[in-house]
Amino acid sequence: MIVPTPTSGSYQSSPASGWGPPYLLYLGNAPDDLSIKTARGLAFWRPQWCLGQYRLPQCQSRLDLPEMSFAAARAAGANTMVVGIANAGGVMGPQAVRDVVAAIEAGLNIASGLHQRLDAHPEIAAAAARTGRVLFDARRFQHAIAVGNGKPRSGRRLLTVGTDCSVGKMYTTLALEQELRQRGISADFRATGQTGILIAGAGVPIDALVADFISGGAEWVSPARADGGWDLIEGQGSLFHPSFAGVSLGLLHGAQPDALVLCHEPQRPHLRGLPHYPVPDLKLCLEANLYSARLTRPDVIAVGIALNTSKLSRAAAEEACKAAEDALGLPCQDPVTMGVGRIADWLFSCFAS
Amino acid sequence: MIVPTPTSGSYQSSPASGWGPPYLLYLGNAPDDLSIKTARGLAFWRPQWCLGQYRLPQCQSRLDLPEMSFAAARAAGANTMVVGIANAGGVMGPQAVRDVVAAIEAGLNIASGLHQRLDAHPEIAAAAARTGRVLFDARRFQHAIAVGNGKPRSGRRLLTVGTDCSVGKMYTTLALEQELRQRGISADFRATGQTGILIAGAGVPIDALVADFISGGAEWVSPARADGGWDLIEGQGSLFHPSFAGVSLGLLHGAQPDALVLCHEPQRPHLRGLPHYPVPDLKLCLEANLYSARLTRPDVIAVGIALNTSKLSRAAAEEACKAAEDALGLPCQDPVTMGVGRIADWLFSCFAS
Repeated sequence: MIVPTPTSGSYQSSPASGWGPPYLLYLGNAPDDLSIKTARGLAFWRPQWCLGQYRLPQCQSRLDLPEMSFAAARAAGANTMVVGIANAGGVMGPQAVRDVVAAIEAGLNIASGLHQRLDAHPEIAAAAARTGRVLFDARRFQHAIAVGNGKPRSGRRLLTVGTDCSVGKMYTTLALEQELRQRGISADFRATGQTGILIAGAGVPIDALVADFISGGAEWVSPARADGGWDLIEGQGSLFHPSFAGVSLGLLHGAQPDALVLCHEPQRPHLRGLPHYPVPDLKLCLEANLYSARLTRPDVIAVGIALNTSKLSRAAAEEACKAAEDALGLPCQDPVTMGVGRIADWLFSCFAS
Repeated sequence: MIVPTPTSGSYQSSPASGWGPPYLLYLGNAPDDLSIKTARGLAFWRPQWCLGQYRLPQCQSRLDLPEMSFAAARAAGANTMVVGIANAGGVMGPQAVRDVVAAIEAGLNIASGLHQRLDAHPEIAAAAARTGRVLFDARRFQHAIAVGNGKPRSGRRLLTVGTDCSVGKMYTTLALEQELRQRGISADFRATGQTGILIAGAGVPIDALVADFISGGAEWVSPARADGGWDLIEGQGSLFHPSFAGVSLGLLHGAQPDALVLCHEPQRPHLRGLPHYPVPDLKLCLEANLYSARLTRPDVIAVGIALNTSKLSRAAAEEACKAAEDALGLPCQDPVTMGVGRIADWLFSCFAS
């Protein structure tokens, strides 16, 4: 069982703009657990940054955090309220807009992982302008980047890839960061999605970039490094997902990974959102990723498999890991329930120098 | 030798916004032939739409069209001036901005294939507002689209793919459109780049979309069709180009092609813009494209190879085609100097029903 520790929470780049932890997590009227996955990811991976949660009466989900009003959170030292609720369409309802305005007026900055920009709501934009509070949209990328150039760069990089979307690539990458740091290895999670960006405090929303800049974005988020440490890059999508494979391939090329970890959820009946597409075979999927990755990193290898076994009994989970290990000849673990120690062991035995 | 004919120029979707042919082509102070490739593409493929060219004294390139002032072009019936010069950075210099304003004041609408939006220049935006003239940016996509869904759809589709960027995919696709139409087959060029969009009058600037929507954009531009005809889809980039392969893969998945034509320029020393990357082997490149395309169109086949032999003698060009034919077992032609008749023959023998 992985237990995130304060050491896992160094803040990669303190945003000059002023948003950042400590956080109040806004759950609003979340209809179910899935809709608070951004808040849950923050609370799980960066508990030391999360002071409390804000819930409305109809909220159907909760985190193990104190319930706080905006004023109480501010008084307790909260800097920013994180709006992580992912509703259909990625937009904010009228109640959430009113709450964000009230939080701003209570002195909180606002960070959001939604598709729709915070300042698309005139009331929110006006409240921020009136109070000088900061609005941060994790899906909005404001740095100038170049198209990818594929030039070999120094440093060690590991990328998580998947058989499908939402199979645990972010959790796996963060578990590896924690494991490596606990072993005294310099290692940094490099975020490529909105939840990851809020957890890391930095990153590139890779699927929100203009298409020509996908690999350039991946190069930007994992620049050359010379300290002997590892960049652990959050993967996105799947080479076998017809909606998003272009993002996955550009990320794979730009990341120039030395090592891949393949992420998978057993028993998923079909690709996420596409009942007419089966989940690809693990071995086939891994081979396709290795083949494509060799374009920019000819020596790339696979070092492990991460299974999301949250829907399985412990016995069935261990059996699934064993089966994947036998099929692919690589250590296989569920990062959340089993940790990633054996994957890290194998990584270091492969990159011993 | 291919000779574009008036029959090849049906206007796919008359833009409701009012821009469109007849055109005056703006060459400005173009420093070389490469910088006018958008204008040259229009003049080559849609000569019946191009009334004249506008050149400044230092212009180092020219088309076989009458030179015209803005007023003369308007008097001759020109509707729109096309700004196709591609300078470094895709921006317009001060002289070009002044000329565009003057053209607007002479009564012309403006269409541009540049990265920078026309209305990013306040003088141009003001002139358009003052006169009611229309500004059209081919790289700006204003339709609402969904992410790709990969659902099989009816109709026949052919996609051009390449070993590299700028190897002749657009010319090959347009040559196929002309060839099929001359044989009485219903066939439509589907544009995915700025020059193609200006030629077709419609299309999707696929590399300017948000990354999540690449395959959705390809699905949008080649919707289901039931008339027995062909959608001929302009390819972009290359699966083996580290800067842009994500776009190529998303386009390949969204296009759901029945047939691929592989485009290549022999003797190119390395990938465009990347001296550290060799051009991939033809056979390897075609196999990778077929493999990836099978995700959404399991029955996809290759039907031909198109070589851009503009840097070769006729004898060397024929030798190069012969070598490619022998290596891949498919008809190979240079669409510009040899036409695409044999590729079309093979296409129809494969899809006889």
